[in-house]
Amino acid sequence: MSEYQNFINSLKHYQGDPKCPVLQSLEILQGKWTSRIIFYLLKNNHMRFGKLKKSIPTITNTMLTSTLRELEQKGIVSRIQYNEIPPHVEYSLTETGNALLPVFFELGKWGKQYAL
Amino acid sequence: MSEYQNFINSLKHYQGDPKCPVLQSLEILQGKWTSRIIFYLLKNNHMRFGKLKKSIPTITNTMLTSTLRELEQKGIVSRIQYNEIPPHVEYSLTETGNALLPVFFELGKWGKQYAL
Repeated sequence: MSEYQNFINSLKHYQGDPKCPVLQSLEILQGKWTSRIIFYLLKNNHMRFGKLKKSIPTITNTMLTSTLRELEQKGIVSRIQYNEIPPHVEYSLTETGNALLPVFFELGKWGKQYAL
Repeated sequence: MSEYQNFINSLKHYQGDPKCPVLQSLEILQGKWTSRIIFYLLKNNHMRFGKLKKSIPTITNTMLTSTLRELEQKGIVSRIQYNEIPPHVEYSLTETGNALLPVFFELGKWGKQYAL
C-alpha cells in the first residue's frame, strides 16, 4: 500500500484545487453514463450506436448521442464513419481512452471483493 | 497491459448483467459527489462535516448529509460520534472504503498524463 499512500500524500497540497489530477479525472468521467460507455468500449473495441444502446437499455438516444459527443470532444472516444453501402458509424476508444483500462481493472477488483 | 486485457476479457460474458464487478462498483460510486467525498477522506483520514463542506464549496448541506448517509449504509464510510464537550462527529473510511485507494491512484496517474 505504500506506493499508493505516497501518491495520496503527494496530492495533499492541492486541497480542492481543480488542477489536482484526481479531481481532473473525476471531472472528466462524471456523468451518469460516461464510465459505462467507456467500459463497454474497452470490452468491445468497436461498437455501433445501436449495439451501445442495446448494452445500456435504460439510456435514451439523446443521452447516448450527447455523451458520445462529449467523450469525442474530450479526446476519449473516436467516431469513424464508414462510407460503405449502407454507410455506418463505429465508436472506439482513443489512446487516451484506452489508458483508462487500469482504472477499470481496479474498479473490477474492488467490485469483486467488496460489492455485494 | 496483458494482465489488464485478460481481466477485461474475463468480464465479457457479463454483458450488461448488473452482477458484473465493474458495473457493481460504478453503481456504488455513481452520484455527483460520491467519489469526491471518498477522495477527501482518503487524503485526510478523519474529517468533520464542516471540513468536508469547506473542501467541496459547491455542495449543499443536504447533499453532503445524504451522500454521507448513503456511503455509511453501503459500508464505505463510518461515522464516529465523540461525546466530548462540545460533542462532535467525524467521518472516515471503513476498510472497504480504504480499499478504493488503488482506483484513485490509477485515476490520478491518468489525470496527470492525459487531463489538460
